Amino acid sequence: MDASPLRIGIAGLGTVGGGVVKILQKHHNLLARRVGRPIEVACVCARDRNRHREVVLSAYEWRDDPLSMVQDESIDTVVELIGGESGIALDLVKGALEVGKSVVTANKAMLAIHGDMLADIADRRGGTLMYEASVAGGIPIIKTFREGLAANEIQNVCGILNGTSNYILTEMRNTGRDFEEVLKDAQTLGYAEADPAFDIDGIDAAHKLCLLSALAFGHKPDFERVTITGITNVTAHDITLAEELGYRIKLLAIARKINGHVAQFVGPCLVPATSAMAAVDGVFNAVLAEGDFVSTGLAIGLGAGEGPTASAVVSDLVDLARGCQLPVFGIPAKDLTRAQWLDSGALESHYYMHVVVLDHPGVLADISAILRDHHISVEAVLQRGRDPGNPVSIVMTTHSAVQREVQQACDKIAALGATVRRPCVMRIENV
Amino acid sequence: MDASPLRIGIAGLGTVGGGVVKILQKHHNLLARRVGRPIEVACVCARDRNRHREVVLSAYEWRDDPLSMVQDESIDTVVELIGGESGIALDLVKGALEVGKSVVTANKAMLAIHGDMLADIADRRGGTLMYEASVAGGIPIIKTFREGLAANEIQNVCGILNGTSNYILTEMRNTGRDFEEVLKDAQTLGYAEADPAFDIDGIDAAHKLCLLSALAFGHKPDFERVTITGITNVTAHDITLAEELGYRIKLLAIARKINGHVAQFVGPCLVPATSAMAAVDGVFNAVLAEGDFVSTGLAIGLGAGEGPTASAVVSDLVDLARGCQLPVFGIPAKDLTRAQWLDSGALESHYYMHVVVLDHPGVLADISAILRDHHISVEAVLQRGRDPGNPVSIVMTTHSAVQREVQQACDKIAALGATVRRPCVMRIENV
Repeated sequence: MDASPLRIGIAGLGTVGGGVVKILQKHHNLLARRVGRPIEVACVCARDRNRHREVVLSAYEWRDDPLSMVQDESIDTVVELIGGESGIALDLVKGALEVGKSVVTANKAMLAIHGDMLADIADRRGGTLMYEASVAGGIPIIKTFREGLAANEIQNVCGILNGTSNYILTEMRNTGRDFEEVLKDAQTLGYAEADPAFDIDGIDAAHKLCLLSALAFGHKPDFERVTITGITNVTAHDITLAEELGYRIKLLAIARKINGHVAQFVGPCLVPATSAMAAVDGVFNAVLAEGDFVSTGLAIGLGAGEGPTASAVVSDLVDLARGCQLPVFGIPAKDLTRAQWLDSGALESHYYMHVVVLDHPGVLADISAILRDHHISVEAVLQRGRDPGNPVSIVMTTHSAVQREVQQACDKIAALGATVRRPCVMRIENV
Repeated sequence: MDASPLRIGIAGLGTVGGGVVKILQKHHNLLARRVGRPIEVACVCARDRNRHREVVLSAYEWRDDPLSMVQDESIDTVVELIGGESGIALDLVKGALEVGKSVVTANKAMLAIHGDMLADIADRRGGTLMYEASVAGGIPIIKTFREGLAANEIQNVCGILNGTSNYILTEMRNTGRDFEEVLKDAQTLGYAEADPAFDIDGIDAAHKLCLLSALAFGHKPDFERVTITGITNVTAHDITLAEELGYRIKLLAIARKINGHVAQFVGPCLVPATSAMAAVDGVFNAVLAEGDFVSTGLAIGLGAGEGPTASAVVSDLVDLARGCQLPVFGIPAKDLTRAQWLDSGALESHYYMHVVVLDHPGVLADISAILRDHHISVEAVLQRGRDPGNPVSIVMTTHSAVQREVQQACDKIAALGATVRRPCVMRIENV
């Protein structure tokens, strides 16, 4: 095997880039032994050369323009940690792949939008694009899908893919406080961004889901085809009610293949309180996969942060340095299909419904009639005490029901005179 | 890349061998797309040609002598599924590696005993030895250690590695029945062998732990240096008591590196009831790993059975067919060290102690004095009711205590006149 160093250029020296340098410095010898050749930093590049960083960079050549790495023959592999779905990051990745270099990135947004185009360039030019750090850094889930489960047709992927949301939901449950309050604390503690929309609205999880779905089912990543609901409407009350029914609320990202059609979905769901998925708390991520031979597996690890994300970047470098170069989405880019998408309205699931109504005679009968008309069969009802004339909560779990019917039933229940606010509806996933 | 088929010979057509053939037949095209070349069965071999098998074998050449595969130039890779730590399995693997072929095996016993010798042959002759199926088939844990976590120095490995034991402990907890009874049922249901010793005595878990420890810490596998306790002495009463204290009992396999010294240990332990590890029930396996950058990760999947194990074998074939050929234990065999072993008596841990004594005045004082003399500090005590003159259970959990001291204290407590039977002692692992 080639024993000359793998020479890399690192573009972007934020938390993750700094972490990558730290690992390469601390484990230089260990990595060389594992890989059979050294991994050497040829040059680094970031917006602000003078910013204080925890790592010593003086041994590396400094570049002001990341794009200068593209044509530089002393660089084998470009590590893109600039971020952003397009702009300079995309130019760099595209440019490097065009000249046949391989690229390692943590950029889920870019891959969710431009993944198939980039995979195509990589295949044509002889490089590849690695992105273990882009989904659940602490879990080698890209490798697991691309290699570990390669003997299986995957049927189902279900994960907790956003640490910020999971942290907020965990805190809401532990403290009984409501969403806004916990979010503010999370921002103070650095667990949530000043602009938390990407995380709490489910966008970040949806980006990641696109990549897992493409890998699992062999289609082009397609962010437009993810049905996304965030966690902003989950209340502390819903968390308590779910708990009483034996469930916990988690923001799940789900990709499923049903009769050849793919459904992609991100939203808050109820999972059984005794499941391993329910035990995934705080900033941890988890991914469950079902394959036709391997059955069900679940992996849990940290989703973000310097150490886990940098560890994932370096594991990609190790693969490349060891000469393991695989197709970006596990099959040649030309074989990636346009998925046939499942109409999400046709999906069946068990549901949790929380209706707040004025305690008038006949309200439960009205609701029951609406559910019956939409073929929704109730499994359990939780209604405690009576409070004539005042708002009370009625909570139901349903047997398997069609999503479209559930939505229509909710519209009708919301229109009832006694209904105080639109019913809260969440899927129950028996993971 | 090489587009000619990878031609394999399969030796052993039991449950796993049959499963491998099933996958290669069902997913022939999918695998070729993922790999870039077909994986073809050149020949098969088993003891009894006429045994009824679920798969059609007529397309493959039949061999009566597995060793005939060694010198056969039409075979690239040998799949050894005969089993047994030596004998014909070892001859086949050794022979194939000697001529530079690669080998895929599920044979943990062979690897735990002869792994370093075989790795050395592989390195010298240019082939490799893959064994994903040998540990927790449903979890790609060998790949995770060798590749996914390659950027980390691993400090700690902790797993549920034997499905039979975990099934028995789960059933004991769910039904309240005692060990012998549940074992008998497990044998009837096919979850335990007629001779269950390998599973319930911890040997099987210890074989697997040897391989994970070697991969994690870079030393030669050494089965002799595993401290092993099985589950035969775990009682339904202990399971109930642990539950009351907020714990579940699991047979854990642990490898830990402390100040450069390695400890390998298999035994029943208490884990927090709310942990994801506690939720790993029935025939599922789990492996937790801690690395210096990735932090803690946990993977859960089926440990045995046709589908998961065959899936793991085929994933190894996929790697080989894709041209990814890595050192057997993640580093060159010549770099594998002889580990410096930790004296297990010096290990510190929290402990669970269950003492059954006659309810005489002064017994608790005697026990307390013994514990104090051995620097064992009690965290919680559970003793319900009084029953003068009759046996009562005293259950304690301790703060961190030294194993040797705990053993000595137990010896002294066992020698007390009031003690009915030797105290049951288990480690508490806060996984």
